[in-house]
Amino acid sequence: MTEPNGAQSLIRTLVDAGVDVCFANPGTSEMHFVAALDSVPEMRGVLGLFEGVVTGAADGYARIAGKPAATLLHLGPGLGNGLANLHNARRAHTPVVNVIGDHATYHKRYDAPLESDIEAVAGSLEGWVRRSESPGDIGADAAAAVAAAQDAPGRVATLILPADVSWGEGGRVAAPVAPRAPRPVEETAVKNVAEALTGDEPVALLIGGGACFEAGLRAASRIAAATGAKVFAETFPARLERGAGLPSIERLGYLAEQVAYQLDGVKHVIVAGTKAPVSFFAYPGKPSDLVPEGARVHTLAEVGEDVVTALNDVAELVAADTEPVLQEPSRPAVPSGPLTTQNWVEVIGALLPERAIIADEANTSGLLLPAATAGAPRHDVLTLTGGAIGYGMPVATGAAIAAPDRPVLNLQSDGSALYTISALWTQARENLNVTTVVLNNHAYAILRLELQRVGAESGGDRANALLDLSRPDMDFVKIAEGMGVPATRATTAEELSEQLARALAEPGPHLIDAVVPPLL
Amino acid sequence: MTEPNGAQSLIRTLVDAGVDVCFANPGTSEMHFVAALDSVPEMRGVLGLFEGVVTGAADGYARIAGKPAATLLHLGPGLGNGLANLHNARRAHTPVVNVIGDHATYHKRYDAPLESDIEAVAGSLEGWVRRSESPGDIGADAAAAVAAAQDAPGRVATLILPADVSWGEGGRVAAPVAPRAPRPVEETAVKNVAEALTGDEPVALLIGGGACFEAGLRAASRIAAATGAKVFAETFPARLERGAGLPSIERLGYLAEQVAYQLDGVKHVIVAGTKAPVSFFAYPGKPSDLVPEGARVHTLAEVGEDVVTALNDVAELVAADTEPVLQEPSRPAVPSGPLTTQNWVEVIGALLPERAIIADEANTSGLLLPAATAGAPRHDVLTLTGGAIGYGMPVATGAAIAAPDRPVLNLQSDGSALYTISALWTQARENLNVTTVVLNNHAYAILRLELQRVGAESGGDRANALLDLSRPDMDFVKIAEGMGVPATRATTAEELSEQLARALAEPGPHLIDAVVPPLL
Repeated sequence: MTEPNGAQSLIRTLVDAGVDVCFANPGTSEMHFVAALDSVPEMRGVLGLFEGVVTGAADGYARIAGKPAATLLHLGPGLGNGLANLHNARRAHTPVVNVIGDHATYHKRYDAPLESDIEAVAGSLEGWVRRSESPGDIGADAAAAVAAAQDAPGRVATLILPADVSWGEGGRVAAPVAPRAPRPVEETAVKNVAEALTGDEPVALLIGGGACFEAGLRAASRIAAATGAKVFAETFPARLERGAGLPSIERLGYLAEQVAYQLDGVKHVIVAGTKAPVSFFAYPGKPSDLVPEGARVHTLAEVGEDVVTALNDVAELVAADTEPVLQEPSRPAVPSGPLTTQNWVEVIGALLPERAIIADEANTSGLLLPAATAGAPRHDVLTLTGGAIGYGMPVATGAAIAAPDRPVLNLQSDGSALYTISALWTQARENLNVTTVVLNNHAYAILRLELQRVGAESGGDRANALLDLSRPDMDFVKIAEGMGVPATRATTAEELSEQLARALAEPGPHLIDAVVPPLL
Repeated sequence: MTEPNGAQSLIRTLVDAGVDVCFANPGTSEMHFVAALDSVPEMRGVLGLFEGVVTGAADGYARIAGKPAATLLHLGPGLGNGLANLHNARRAHTPVVNVIGDHATYHKRYDAPLESDIEAVAGSLEGWVRRSESPGDIGADAAAAVAAAQDAPGRVATLILPADVSWGEGGRVAAPVAPRAPRPVEETAVKNVAEALTGDEPVALLIGGGACFEAGLRAASRIAAATGAKVFAETFPARLERGAGLPSIERLGYLAEQVAYQLDGVKHVIVAGTKAPVSFFAYPGKPSDLVPEGARVHTLAEVGEDVVTALNDVAELVAADTEPVLQEPSRPAVPSGPLTTQNWVEVIGALLPERAIIADEANTSGLLLPAATAGAPRHDVLTLTGGAIGYGMPVATGAAIAAPDRPVLNLQSDGSALYTISALWTQARENLNVTTVVLNNHAYAILRLELQRVGAESGGDRANALLDLSRPDMDFVKIAEGMGVPATRATTAEELSEQLARALAEPGPHLIDAVVPPLL
């Protein structure tokens, strides 16, 4: 490429650094970036019809690809629309490289209608933010952004691209910058943890981040087998490997009541690649800190430290001769009868294909899912790390772009589906192998539960009406078909089984509107 | 109400201050607010399935009701999802009172998954932001928020409500606080403007804000009739009154080329209730400032000043004996044949009912709309003030809540429709009299235009693919029906006429998928 303009040097630099997918919802200020896609054909542009789809797809892509995608967003409002799924990406420590077009440098002072404080909003993500000042800078800025996104443990990097920097001549392609590796863990931390594990008191080991992949799971399982420690994965891991042939590690519960049960009697909580457990929300009269009273917290590896090496080092000290306990293959029988909270997850467990990726936003409907799929063929589970609902459809979309040879299963509650429903259109456009099962219980069921849990017992008709999604019922078959995704409705386990098997066998996206009763 | 809790005192205070509609997308941290709806039945809760619907509806509501609605949003991600339409509300100077639930005060230090910097994001709206510290404060804070939202010229006020402040006892209901009225205009400004108007050189008068209602339009028309000045309304007024019996005031164009034509030869630009014209975006080699070279700008009334009184004062000086020029009733004939960019607007002009409210997000498809509706019965037009697309469906929803006895017509481009499509569900749930006409041209047509205008002439196949919405085609009939809104498809002017007449005659929401050719 001779004499690239700013946008061309940006895209070339991204591609050279391994970022070759851009989820995009462009506007006028991004038109030169769009035009430059024709001069750097290695960059794949994937269109989303809403920025929450774009950012969620970038999150899902990187969780599976292990490297960042770029996003292309239109000024402050575009970032705003993408913010909730960037929040989830931030909590997942997913590397994401946002490119946000802005007004030309000389245009900003006119306070045109789309002018807003992009830095303030991007800064709320506590990642990396830079504004490119000239076409000659943008290559180096892009290389720095890709590195910053991947510096352990991973973060959202945002590069603001003024329109005249994009269209200006004199772009310079920059070489990739190596990201910062995870920091090694201090030897004393390993020894202290080994001591706690070999003492007389009950221990729980809580793993997260990179420890939720095979190597970390095996080390944790060896430690548990040798010492009797309980092992849990963090409540919402970005990506948890599981299934037959891997250690089966239970996740810490979402509800404080569950966690109290799981950690009952524990005197030492070892955290590895995550933080000590806290309640998702506060509730009147209940503790926020979920570490049992009187228990000590030992940090083996903070987020951003080399947790897998640390776990292996501990295992060498306390479990040198112990093998991990691996899950045997085991599937539920294909159930029958009207769909229930129990039997729909059995259908998933019975039919989950090899190497599946589950984007799990089933929320209350998925309470029994982990047990039903524990012995299914090896698969990945992606979870709602940041609690901002509307993540499932976009994340499934990005995961399918990252792994076109793997089946992606999006288990999607109805209440969360409408936030980013147009991800279905992108799935159809790109012919992605995503099967969406909407758990359609006609309610914000989790909020009915929460209305009770927060002690708001006076919740009357008017309160409950705000948590009801049945007036009118949503017909997800029609909505999906309207966006180009073939869809069917299942009301029995037999129908769900038959439709799921067919959807998984056919290439391209499918949606099943599974009518399930609410948990409450 | 004896001894209200924080949430109850908040809602009671809002209702006492005239804020009796709350567009809500609640989560756990807002459950006590939801529960309190049963103890203050004067507050109407309207559920949206996505926060962009909630904030856009609050914008549309206030533009028509002339007073704010409240929103109920779930922490930082909820605000993020609502940010784009709050940006539009900010640019419209619409009063909006956001209530954003947050973690309990003592819970924030645990950095739970949904923790984020709400103040930073809310601050980007340059309105009013406060965090309530105790149940005893929240009433006074709410009264201050309602006043701040309505202080001339109007703004977005954001009240952050920690969960324990909401559920805590000791709430105190506060009395309404009077908002600040528009500042009076200096007499010298009136005299200077009158002098420019009565001089020998060509003058353009650009009106905006509150001057786009009848009183301002009449004063502007008198001035124009007496002095020969050209009068324009700002490009994107929040609300423009127009139709038979009112002065017909042309809007300034969106494209710089249009504005150059409109202001050709002008030596004095008088701005009243708005700012001097600037280009929406910057373009290589073209000016951002759209005031003709050599012309002087005179400010009659800044945004936030009493522009209507100022215009009347000027009219008394320069047009004491002149009547305004009022639009005669005049409608296009009902056209026939396949839908075109010309004939679909003629259908609207031919059938627009009395007292209609048009939420206009037709974008490129609506280029010829103003001429076709100029002589229709008196109506209001709401426009995309901030340029953040996805505003039309929510704003139409809120307008219909504000004026249940008026027909609301949402003219909606396909490219902008998917951002906030679930507004249709709220329209069905509330049985609102909104007729949506989707201008379905299968493209981001405005971006095709902009790709050329920014000089990115190399836009090749890959660039153009990103602006194409035809793979797959969206079927808005199915999408609408899936959300509970009856829908039909029109491909000819006859079909559109027949379907529109029927939709307007029947109560409740309707959608027409109007297949139109792209402008380019």
